[in-house]
Amino acid sequence: MENKKHIETCFSPKLFSLFEKKDRLIVVADIFRATSSICAALGNGAKEIAAVSEKQECLEYKKKGFIIAGEREGKILDYADMGNSPDGFLTPEIKGKSIVLNTTNGTRTIRIAGKYNNPLAIGAFINLKALTDHIINENKHILIFCSGWKDHFSLEDSLFAGALASEVLNSPGDNFYTKCDATLAAIDVWKTAKNNPRKYIDKAAHRLRLKHMKLDNVIDYCMQVSIVNVVPVLRDNRLINFDDI
Amino acid sequence: MENKKHIETCFSPKLFSLFEKKDRLIVVADIFRATSSICAALGNGAKEIAAVSEKQECLEYKKKGFIIAGEREGKILDYADMGNSPDGFLTPEIKGKSIVLNTTNGTRTIRIAGKYNNPLAIGAFINLKALTDHIINENKHILIFCSGWKDHFSLEDSLFAGALASEVLNSPGDNFYTKCDATLAAIDVWKTAKNNPRKYIDKAAHRLRLKHMKLDNVIDYCMQVSIVNVVPVLRDNRLINFDDI
Repeated sequence: MENKKHIETCFSPKLFSLFEKKDRLIVVADIFRATSSICAALGNGAKEIAAVSEKQECLEYKKKGFIIAGEREGKILDYADMGNSPDGFLTPEIKGKSIVLNTTNGTRTIRIAGKYNNPLAIGAFINLKALTDHIINENKHILIFCSGWKDHFSLEDSLFAGALASEVLNSPGDNFYTKCDATLAAIDVWKTAKNNPRKYIDKAAHRLRLKHMKLDNVIDYCMQVSIVNVVPVLRDNRLINFDDI
Repeated sequence: MENKKHIETCFSPKLFSLFEKKDRLIVVADIFRATSSICAALGNGAKEIAAVSEKQECLEYKKKGFIIAGEREGKILDYADMGNSPDGFLTPEIKGKSIVLNTTNGTRTIRIAGKYNNPLAIGAFINLKALTDHIINENKHILIFCSGWKDHFSLEDSLFAGALASEVLNSPGDNFYTKCDATLAAIDVWKTAKNNPRKYIDKAAHRLRLKHMKLDNVIDYCMQVSIVNVVPVLRDNRLINFDDI
């Protein structure tokens, strides 16, 4: 096991400080919706994305020519140019653009993880295969960082952690292992769900919240597996597609 | 759903502050080993148990006639009278005794939960049925508090949370529900494990740790389901069997 790489999963930003960061590739997941939106935008040819939570910082990016994408509870922020839903990034106008993305949980998680200067990749169901291939090529220890919902465990992010860990562990070469309880539990949840992840997630609390706000239209998109061939990575505070480096 | 009671699960002491405490019955779980030991001791007729982490406080209880049960990494603490393993509490000498219990994770969790002055019960696989019956009788919202391992998610404690939630949700009367993602995930993990919980837990990190310290003999005992008919509850900083009140 000496040369094998370990897979660990962090279920909440409040637990992130407990984990060893040295030599880890950190994968950030916020399925509903930041990381799905990032994959959608870069998959549709956007040039780069800055994940930002503060209004002032968003406006500074705007001065540099960035489009501001941000909403809260279904309403576009008064200083934003567009919402942050993945389908908003699927229009032709997005190609070549620089975007500043403002969401509730995901931007914060990316910021927290970004402080460690580790290699950082963005994960979502929609880029699962591309990300798995990237992880296998990089051959590093993996720390999957679930954004959760207001620091709570979230079913959709942990389900994704289980999907990613399963894919990586089952990859040819047998170079990865896990003895992380959170990862083991996530894998078992994924086994329950994988025949129909879209249906499984119907019971998730955040899905109920989105439904209540009439925002659950994004779920069908976000729960599709491996439809986008991008691996967003963090470079100089901007997320770009790994293949563009 | 208005009159139904909600079941929530907290996977780590670091997340406990996120949860609403009002009108909740808190169930503390530390399967390996504090809560299994507490159930074993009270099930074998011990009078009361004080869960204490500090040496000085243990010694003060000793002056009052308490037996000190405490160990770290398999070694009995130098000021203790016995270890804290559940099988140590199965001898006839334990009947009628007052015990002060010192463990790594569980005593801390009981202390954290105890600060809220909520009704507090102790949960383990070994008292699953008695605890389920108690919860149904009490008819309160439930917050299952997993001790974890050094604030990390632990498979055995969350598996227990899934078992307890499943039992309560499936109870006659249909008085409980959950839309807590952590509880939903724990239930799905339990579904994977319930045909053979002992075998399932072989992969848990803490089980590997215990094996490494040659302490895994307690696992066979702790993974037995519903063998002890007690519900330890907290009264005046002491754990006593609910039926003795």
